[in-house]
Amino acid sequence: MWVLVVYDISDDGKRNKVARELQRLGLGRIQRSAFVGDLDPQRYKDLVRVCDKLVDGEGDILHIIPLGLRDWERRVVISGDSDRRETVPLL
Amino acid sequence: MWVLVVYDISDDGKRNKVARELQRLGLGRIQRSAFVGDLDPQRYKDLVRVCDKLVDGEGDILHIIPLGLRDWERRVVISGDSDRRETVPLL
Repeated sequence: MWVLVVYDISDDGKRNKVARELQRLGLGRIQRSAFVGDLDPQRYKDLVRVCDKLVDGEGDILHIIPLGLRDWERRVVISGDSDRRETVPLL
Repeated sequence: MWVLVVYDISDDGKRNKVARELQRLGLGRIQRSAFVGDLDPQRYKDLVRVCDKLVDGEGDILHIIPLGLRDWERRVVISGDSDRRETVPLL
């Protein structure tokens, strides 16, 4: 099951801990506060449990969003680094 | 067509401008740097064109990810504000 995890966490220590846990669970970083990956049902449950435990700061928020592989493959990535600009897929 | 837009933009002015444009196009903010919404094909093309023009800072990046409505409805939101904690849907 593909998932996207995006978060707003103000405390640096907590934010880094969440990032380490997401990587430990097998997710890959696509932005500073956004990770994507394909998890089996048990790993998905671990993800929810770990995030539920770690995200506890006032105003902090984290979204875990299931993602269709086809949808992920049709993503558009726009980068400010001219050499990393990915072509925009035609719909 | 549902889309999720997430971005890392370091310059405050540029980041605010992108946020204003995403709201003008009809997307709703779910986090500081994440927006979601249902766009018709023309609005989607406007979105890609506007973001392609605005995201030009070194190291800045923006993802536009198509999203299934069913997937969006199965999202898990974990908030640090105890009163805003959404229930975790059982899979």
